[in-house]
Amino acid sequence: MTNLVLVEVLRGEIVESAHRGAVAVCDADGKAVLEIGDTSQPVFPRSAIKAIQALPLVESGTADAYGFGNKELALACASHGGEPAHVELASAMLATAGLDGAALECGTHWPSHQDSTLALARAGRLPNDLHNNCSGKHSGFICTCVHLGVDHHGYVAAGHRSQQMVREAMQDVTGARHDAGNSAIDGCSIPTYAIPLKDLAAGFAKMVTGKGLSAKRAKAARRLMAACMAEPFYVAGTGRADTRLMQAAPGRIFVKIGAEGVYCAALPELGFGIALKAEDGGERAAEVMVAAVLSRLLKADEDLSERLAAMARPPVLNRKGLAVGVLRPAEALFV
Amino acid sequence: MTNLVLVEVLRGEIVESAHRGAVAVCDADGKAVLEIGDTSQPVFPRSAIKAIQALPLVESGTADAYGFGNKELALACASHGGEPAHVELASAMLATAGLDGAALECGTHWPSHQDSTLALARAGRLPNDLHNNCSGKHSGFICTCVHLGVDHHGYVAAGHRSQQMVREAMQDVTGARHDAGNSAIDGCSIPTYAIPLKDLAAGFAKMVTGKGLSAKRAKAARRLMAACMAEPFYVAGTGRADTRLMQAAPGRIFVKIGAEGVYCAALPELGFGIALKAEDGGERAAEVMVAAVLSRLLKADEDLSERLAAMARPPVLNRKGLAVGVLRPAEALFV
Repeated sequence: MTNLVLVEVLRGEIVESAHRGAVAVCDADGKAVLEIGDTSQPVFPRSAIKAIQALPLVESGTADAYGFGNKELALACASHGGEPAHVELASAMLATAGLDGAALECGTHWPSHQDSTLALARAGRLPNDLHNNCSGKHSGFICTCVHLGVDHHGYVAAGHRSQQMVREAMQDVTGARHDAGNSAIDGCSIPTYAIPLKDLAAGFAKMVTGKGLSAKRAKAARRLMAACMAEPFYVAGTGRADTRLMQAAPGRIFVKIGAEGVYCAALPELGFGIALKAEDGGERAAEVMVAAVLSRLLKADEDLSERLAAMARPPVLNRKGLAVGVLRPAEALFV
Repeated sequence: MTNLVLVEVLRGEIVESAHRGAVAVCDADGKAVLEIGDTSQPVFPRSAIKAIQALPLVESGTADAYGFGNKELALACASHGGEPAHVELASAMLATAGLDGAALECGTHWPSHQDSTLALARAGRLPNDLHNNCSGKHSGFICTCVHLGVDHHGYVAAGHRSQQMVREAMQDVTGARHDAGNSAIDGCSIPTYAIPLKDLAAGFAKMVTGKGLSAKRAKAARRLMAACMAEPFYVAGTGRADTRLMQAAPGRIFVKIGAEGVYCAALPELGFGIALKAEDGGERAAEVMVAAVLSRLLKADEDLSERLAAMARPPVLNRKGLAVGVLRPAEALFV
């Protein structure tokens, strides 16, 4: 089936570009609450499922043994901006395991937070793996290995015990198969598996409610979701959509972006999980889509719903910072 | 009509994202040589028509009076990376008119060329309007005003003599209406007008052949196209698709990207103009589309055609620089 246009980009009064996409909202039993577009098509969730990938960190007892609180757990679920606070916390997590940034195998890139990139350059420094947006997740992987007495070297490989634990968790929570037939390599070198949006949505309903999971896993899942909602700066960073959306209603909204236009989200009070993808991979469209869907699902709270609806209509700015257009979510996302 | 998928983004063997789009190839009589998707839908060409917008600079005699050669004319048609050579040349153009960067009204942004941004930061400097990717075009506007004795202040406004000349040129070359009903504000604050891809394609066929234009305009058009093909670094910059494509066959390929996934191009030896847009505004898709279409149109030269086809299949890299996927142009672009 052809996905419909869900976000239009207007310049003045004219539609300049258009993003198609699909959205699934499910409860923890896997029942669809809302389906727009092709929700059966497998998609790579990329970083949107970092909270599921962090389950072994908690379940293994590592988080408790190393004294990790909400900030560390949020960072383990994060695609952070490489701001100093993110980098320092990832470094501190590794130090707890007696290691440093050299143990990371995620690769290096300049911080996505531009001011942090400029500050590094002004200081005559270069980025390292700690600045990688995935360094918190990878620090969690490494700490888990060290705590369990597993050699952490090569922890990014599909055959390593670290990724086997992660894969088992993803498979259990989403109910979808995760094997060589639907896998590829993620930006940070670990495997990623393409699965249907509706399985991702049901998985995040389980994560936030604990329903359908073992007691131990349910407790770990709720702890991770609560940590992200308590410390949204550590999940993304200054000015980022994930951080702003979770700050809009503390404890009531979980969201996590993934590369190529993916979002996973969950609403504790409704017990719903959400998963969506902009067909073309456009991040700006995914941000609009998730804000619009959250606005719709939370319409019982008029004030919050209106604030989310406003976040679903960000302006298009020119180089002087003037609004010269707007992103417009499709009616299908609201009704 | 629904535009077809023209570029797929593969991660491993699986399609992760997909870009739809439309392509028009026309001769100077406006006859369609190739049409894919909806080529009648108006699109904002954005920076892809800078060569047309530079016509008054040449036609007014400004370029000759100020001694502008290929580099200056290429920069007037450029979306440059803000590299030192770009910034210095824009500054020198303004100095010829007795002005400096303070005359620019395009707004400021950090150079799109990352190494140039880092070098600025390392030197403790901030960007100014000269680093704006449009500063060459705007310098051309300002020089033309000064040469004609027109007050340059406010030259970005639709009602200013500068933009009236630019609009007249765009209307004449494309044959499409340009008025308040199809206009909006571009990133650099000047008006942009949404017109059909096939009119843009026919316009660039006229630019490269001179057919259908007045003798004076035809000469100016061919001079600007030749300048861009002679100095492709000044049209874009280090590592950029426009520069690499024009360097692949010196003097035989003209290309110019525009924001939101637009390309205009022209092939002197065939007398064809090309215009295309990725529906979602994706630049990566537009780059693949233009390379694929050029490969198709130039297939008589097997070696060149194959090199262009290879440029139409760039790898997807992870953070360690390893190829973990590929962009795949649709068969429809080749046959």
